[in-house]
Amino acid sequence: MPRPRIVIIGGGFAGLAAAKVFRGKPVDVSVIDRTNHHLFQPLLYQVAMAGLAPSDITVPIRWILRNERNVRVIFGEVVKVDPAAREVIVDSLGAPVGYDALIVTTGARHAYFGHDAWEACAPGLKSLEDALEMRRRFLTAFERAELTSDAAERASLMTFVIVGGGPTGVELAGMMIEIARKAMPSDFRSIDTRNSRVVLVEAGPRLLPALPEGSSIRARRDLERLGVEVRTGAAVTGVDGHGVRIGDEFVRARNVFWAAGNQASPLGAMLGGPVDHAGRVIVRDDLSVPGHPEVFVAGDLAAVVRADGSLVPGVAPAAIQEGRRAALNALRIVNSETTSPFRYYNKGDLATIGRNRAIAVFGRFEVAGYPAWLLWLFVHILYLVGFRNRLSVLVQWAYAYFTFQRGVRLITAAERAAPSVTRSGDRS
Amino acid sequence: MPRPRIVIIGGGFAGLAAAKVFRGKPVDVSVIDRTNHHLFQPLLYQVAMAGLAPSDITVPIRWILRNERNVRVIFGEVVKVDPAAREVIVDSLGAPVGYDALIVTTGARHAYFGHDAWEACAPGLKSLEDALEMRRRFLTAFERAELTSDAAERASLMTFVIVGGGPTGVELAGMMIEIARKAMPSDFRSIDTRNSRVVLVEAGPRLLPALPEGSSIRARRDLERLGVEVRTGAAVTGVDGHGVRIGDEFVRARNVFWAAGNQASPLGAMLGGPVDHAGRVIVRDDLSVPGHPEVFVAGDLAAVVRADGSLVPGVAPAAIQEGRRAALNALRIVNSETTSPFRYYNKGDLATIGRNRAIAVFGRFEVAGYPAWLLWLFVHILYLVGFRNRLSVLVQWAYAYFTFQRGVRLITAAERAAPSVTRSGDRS
Repeated sequence: MPRPRIVIIGGGFAGLAAAKVFRGKPVDVSVIDRTNHHLFQPLLYQVAMAGLAPSDITVPIRWILRNERNVRVIFGEVVKVDPAAREVIVDSLGAPVGYDALIVTTGARHAYFGHDAWEACAPGLKSLEDALEMRRRFLTAFERAELTSDAAERASLMTFVIVGGGPTGVELAGMMIEIARKAMPSDFRSIDTRNSRVVLVEAGPRLLPALPEGSSIRARRDLERLGVEVRTGAAVTGVDGHGVRIGDEFVRARNVFWAAGNQASPLGAMLGGPVDHAGRVIVRDDLSVPGHPEVFVAGDLAAVVRADGSLVPGVAPAAIQEGRRAALNALRIVNSETTSPFRYYNKGDLATIGRNRAIAVFGRFEVAGYPAWLLWLFVHILYLVGFRNRLSVLVQWAYAYFTFQRGVRLITAAERAAPSVTRSGDRS
Repeated sequence: MPRPRIVIIGGGFAGLAAAKVFRGKPVDVSVIDRTNHHLFQPLLYQVAMAGLAPSDITVPIRWILRNERNVRVIFGEVVKVDPAAREVIVDSLGAPVGYDALIVTTGARHAYFGHDAWEACAPGLKSLEDALEMRRRFLTAFERAELTSDAAERASLMTFVIVGGGPTGVELAGMMIEIARKAMPSDFRSIDTRNSRVVLVEAGPRLLPALPEGSSIRARRDLERLGVEVRTGAAVTGVDGHGVRIGDEFVRARNVFWAAGNQASPLGAMLGGPVDHAGRVIVRDDLSVPGHPEVFVAGDLAAVVRADGSLVPGVAPAAIQEGRRAALNALRIVNSETTSPFRYYNKGDLATIGRNRAIAVFGRFEVAGYPAWLLWLFVHILYLVGFRNRLSVLVQWAYAYFTFQRGVRLITAAERAAPSVTRSGDRS
């Protein structure tokens, strides 16, 4: 009898957690990803801010799964899922990949709430390419400000607007102001980078809406002390190459970064089940797709509704827990056994604000300031997958911490936008 | 009286060495580069072979020159040099940059000896982009070999031909065979990467032609022990997407890499002086351009003829020495003093062959094997410009050395060539 075939799409936190469940089990597993690496997304903003190298937060998927002898890795993009035929079409393979159970973990990208044209002016931060583009824009802005003789243009180049007051927005804002004020000044001759403006805009009433209110107040105070202008209850109504419209006000800024909204991967809509407004698959309590008990969804692509009606948050620990549960249930399905419901266990929330400051929430406990920052450091290094990455990240951080210098201030030549060419303004 | 204006084009070894000469001198210096970073080219092959991250071998030019208060850095590409008007046109500036003395250090790229069409099939290794493209091809070849069911195609994907038996070719070949035989095997399920072929082709009679004959013999023996097929006296007469023609033989190989030949930067031809067959400027003994005593050329762009008729080699120590001499002479020119001739002091040659083996030549002394390798390690880390880079490179190397793993095995998503699409074969 042939062994049951399990297919996992996506090598993120959910997909890898799922793959590891099958160790030693009598099944054949295929993990399909369109990149060859796992991305440690919680530190992506550090790559965008030139604090870490791309290879510090990535690990080859093959390397992570090298000891799982019943797992093969397929480097390719899934272009179609056919739940009726139980097949997946991959662009790099001549024949479809059949499955007895499927686990889809292809996540989400940022959403512009129907204003897709904003993306060119306000790039988001989900992939490594996003991070490198954000880095390029951030570093090039100072280069262009140094060369221009137009004072208004210079001010606009040195204004950075971040849309979205969740953890990514807060972490980006804190790091941006620090780099501009501490690491950059001695590099330039015509501009004083300490005059840079960083504006953090949040449509809701407070920053870090997923954390308790005390954390929001503290984050705002810490950011304002660093010099960030925080605007809450401020909806962005327009973005173009010249700046951002916030309510009635227009903020002139050549640099707008997007840290708001999520739109799930298009594969979610191919699975035959219901999806919510963000494209997430509304799964059953065992993480399967309604009508397809052999198809599971885990991670940011899944809308997992809790008993109180709220959704399980889109964070790495939730993705890992969902991936494991989906894999255990997939094993039960191929053995014709009953599946178990998923229960989310919240281990706590962490966000960092510049050097030395962070916020940690564990159930009813809150820690802030330096102890929370040390904890943040410890947790993030601990969870980095490869030993080499842990060591390398420690070195980079220690260097940045003690010298205030950013080591990885690299704009690659191919990416250099000739500053004199500013057609349509959207590549500034 | 306005201070004399010195312009340096290029932030490589020669350009930076020149810039540092002007510390505290009553001149205004501009350093123009089209990238924002200095590249440590001797380790570029390590980035191509996924052993180091791009940021490990790059340092922001602004950071290197942050304490030189009379030096400004211009991020832009020089599109024209006008020696009659004493002006340089930069794409990122509205007005030309005038100079009283000019130092041009824009180096060379690889040359295909009139066969420019070969470049698409056989990329070279001069810039960071070259290295990332080589890395992408090297890693993608194994991914495609893993997925194909065609045995001939698999063999072709697992054959790597390196054209050029100089230090770059020798170092690439040694590293490639080691990665294929030691680091990769456990990652794949369908292929055995230990069956990979690495072929090193040199048109001349021996490897490392710039070193004494004993070194050539030793390098060949070491490479062959590692498993590299070495072909000397073998001219490449054709390259296409399917392989390489070497004399009468056609070697099927999807992966051909170019480590032969040099073509100087096109700026050399704009300086009003004579250039040689490779486009290098034939300079006077004080490194100035004949007819333009205020224009100096240093580094790989300069053809510096020694008393015995031979050229000063295109290595980093020579570029640094030339940059310093050009800067000292530029200072004399703007002060209406007599310039001094350049004298090359050869500190020795070093080449590494895989793990643990290297060759070092100092005048009449030769060191080989493990001691030479330790020396190679020491010299290269010592010369890396930033402290952070030294530490990071040490970590990466120590990790690679003790585990046989390559840490930085990263193919970025944007670069992934969908393996099923092989139109014209030239992107394999």
